[in-house]
Order: sequence, then structure tokens, then C-alpha cells
Amino acid sequence: MEYDGTSYFGFQIQARRPTIQGSLEEVLARLTGERIRIRYAGRTDSGVHAVGQVISFHARWRHTAADLERAWNALLPVDIAVRHVEPVADQRFHPRYSARSRVYQYTVWTSPWRSPLHSRYSYHEPKPLDVDGMNQAARFLIGEHDFAAFGQPTQGESTVRAVAVAKWWQPEDSARVRLLFTIEANAFLRRMVRSVVGTLLEVGKGFRPVDGVAEVLAARDRRLAAPPAPAGGLCLMEVKY
Amino acid sequence: MEYDGTSYFGFQIQARRPTIQGSLEEVLARLTGERIRIRYAGRTDSGVHAVGQVISFHARWRHTAADLERAWNALLPVDIAVRHVEPVADQRFHPRYSARSRVYQYTVWTSPWRSPLHSRYSYHEPKPLDVDGMNQAARFLIGEHDFAAFGQPTQGESTVRAVAVAKWWQPEDSARVRLLFTIEANAFLRRMVRSVVGTLLEVGKGFRPVDGVAEVLAARDRRLAAPPAPAGGLCLMEVKY
Repeated sequence: MEYDGTSYFGFQIQARRPTIQGSLEEVLARLTGERIRIRYAGRTDSGVHAVGQVISFHARWRHTAADLERAWNALLPVDIAVRHVEPVADQRFHPRYSARSRVYQYTVWTSPWRSPLHSRYSYHEPKPLDVDGMNQAARFLIGEHDFAAFGQPTQGESTVRAVAVAKWWQPEDSARVRLLFTIEANAFLRRMVRSVVGTLLEVGKGFRPVDGVAEVLAARDRRLAAPPAPAGGLCLMEVKY
Repeated sequence: MEYDGTSYFGFQIQARRPTIQGSLEEVLARLTGERIRIRYAGRTDSGVHAVGQVISFHARWRHTAADLERAWNALLPVDIAVRHVEPVADQRFHPRYSARSRVYQYTVWTSPWRSPLHSRYSYHEPKPLDVDGMNQAARFLIGEHDFAAFGQPTQGESTVRAVAVAKWWQPEDSARVRLLFTIEANAFLRRMVRSVVGTLLEVGKGFRPVDGVAEVLAARDRRLAAPPAPAGGLCLMEVKY
């Protein structure tokens, strides 16, 4: 799935509020004539985008997967799209529990002026950022750690997560105004990516020392991390199986 | 100026409808205490975007140009921004009449699925396009021609325009799904770029022969050109002086 989360109260269905799951299930019900509950890989927050969300469901459907893909896309709102539909061979497949890792990307727009054509999908930071320092700080996050300082478990579960990649980088083409943060982990706590980004941006602005991030991590205290960076900059890029 | 034109009825001010000019003048009036009429380089249509619109005006302002830039951006809606403010030395400067040329870009998104994260700023065409044929056809437009078939003059003036650049190209970075059309001319007729794009897309889909574009141009008949391509794909990139 790909979606622009700007107009939605997050992925997970809620009563009387627009959600991605709500839109998907509503259209599925119209197409199949049954109420279908979908399963999903990641519960993105209000305003967060995705280009690689994965969902699954059981449905009676007499036509091809390509027919379902076309019909679904024709009825979904313009800010939600199905990229690909395929039948699942393995009945044990679950988009969340079968996933090995998730990749998120956070976009910071660093031009002196704010950019209306990029404001939906990035966070504007006109102050100069010490990207080397932010990358040094990000390295403390790599590996298996207790991330209690950076987020909440969705239920009463463990706050230990294994981060494989955490790096800031600038694509060649963007006249050096687009600064991206790519983070990959086996799973994430709620708000974890945005809390990490908020904290690393404070390092980049010189408000925190580079090794302050190691201290926040060790203290496991949410009050020591920065507030989450705004949702619009965050995008779920890929779920790996 | 940079703006996302999605929510506006074009640049030019209209009664009781949101326009870019209306927003700019409203904020200028709040900042300066006077009603100021701005001049502009290009009257972009409803839904068309800009990253390089140029405007000018006369105002009494006791502070610096940078102060005006900051204050204006602070009060403008999120989808409009001032990139740079500077005092004009030459009193004869007019953003429209002093311009030597304008550069527009049209974005076609060519992935098989529609992309919610790109739908505001591109037109989705999932069918395969003959880009070489579109470029051969575009070459007929280069030079000084009567473009009456492709647009209307803003007043009763001439429909002759001089096109310097008209080419389709794909940026390296975009996994070959982003197809861009860049066109530069001394000036444009209303709807001209979108009518040209609509017509060239028909060549790309094999609905028109490559040299059909030369015939449309020679006939000077709007009924022979294709309908204008959708506004969201179009962006005013630069005005040259």
C-alpha cells in the first residue's frame, strides 16, 4: 500500500474518524459484499505516510488478483493506493508477525525558506545542522537496546528492539536541501522513529552533545528524549519478510 | 514565490474565491497598513504550482527586505511561501514585461499504480509512452510559431510565441517512473503548456502521428489540439530577465 497520511487519524481504524484501515475495509466490503478485517504490518500514526505498507486478509473473490487491485484502486480515495495484490500461499503468513524488519525514512527540508511543494512530506529546519554529529549520535542506536526512552510498546510488551541501520544522508540530486534519515529495525515502539529524529535534530543544532543520546538510551526515561518530530516527515518505506 | 496551487482558483485575484494573489495582498495589507496591488510574471491557472513565480509592488516599509520576507512567510498559509525579497533598483522593472522568458515543467508519473505521494504534483499515465516519438513531435514546436491551436491570448493580442526549449526527459534518480517535460518560451498563451502536453501525450500513446503536431500548429485551430493535460502536473519553474 501507498498512502498520504495527511488527512487521516493514522492507520488503525477508529469510530467516526477517517483512517487508512477504515477506508480500505469500507471499499473491500463494497467489492466483496462481506465485512473483512484486514491485518497490517505497521500501525502508522496520524499524519504519517507510507509507500510500502503491507496488509493481508481473507476474502471470497471469484476474479483475479489483478482485477481486485484495479477495482480497489478505482474506489479508494486519491490519497490511498494499492500497489500490488497477490494471493498468499502460506496460510500462516501475517503481515506483522512474519515481518523480519521495517524501514522508515524521515525527511528534513533544510532550505532557508519553507517550501510549500515539500511541506506535506518533510519537516522544515532552516538552521544549519551538524550532520556528522547527528550520524555519530545515531550510531549509538545501532544494535539491540532497550528503547524505552524513545517510545511506548503497543501493549505491555518488551521495549527491546534491534536497530540494523540508522543513518542521515543526502541524495545527490537535491541541491543539498533534502536531508534523509533511514532507520531499519526488527520492530519499532510507538513514536520511536519520531522521538529518535527529534533527539538527533537537537544534537544537530548543538543543543545536546553527541553522546547524550547514549545517556538517554541508558536511562530508559522518556522525559530525557526530545519531543517527537512532526508526523509529516515520516514515511514507512518497506517491510521485509 | 513558491506555491502549491491545489487549493486555489489560480494566481489572479477573484472575488470570494481563494487565489494566490488574494492571499499575498491580504497579508501585505496587514503588514504595511496599505492596500497594495502586486504585479506578477505569470498568471498560473487554477491548480497549477510554482517554484519560481516573480512579483513586484510598491510599499512603504521601514524595516529591511529580510524582515519583510520573514514576516510575510510567517503570516502566509502553509501552501504559499516567499523565497526571497529584494528592493528593485530600476523603477521601470515589471515582472511580466521585463521578463525575457519563462520555464515551465510538466510531470508525468508513469508507474503502473497511481501514487498518492505524487498525485498532487504529477499526472498519472500508466500506459507505455513512446518518449522518442514525443520528443520528435516536440521539436516541431521549437522556434517562432503561431500557437493559436494551443491556447488563447490573455487579451486580443498576437498568438505568436517563440519556444526555445521543448523536451521530455527522465531524471536519473527516479527509477524511471518520473517523466518530465521542460518548455521555455518568451511568453505563453493561456493553457498553452497543458494543451501542448495533452497533444504530445496522445503522440506518446500512438493516437496521433509524430508529424500530426506540425499539422495542428499550421491549422491554428484549437479543436485539433488535445484537451489540456490536468493542472496538477504543471509548475512554473523560473522567469528569466
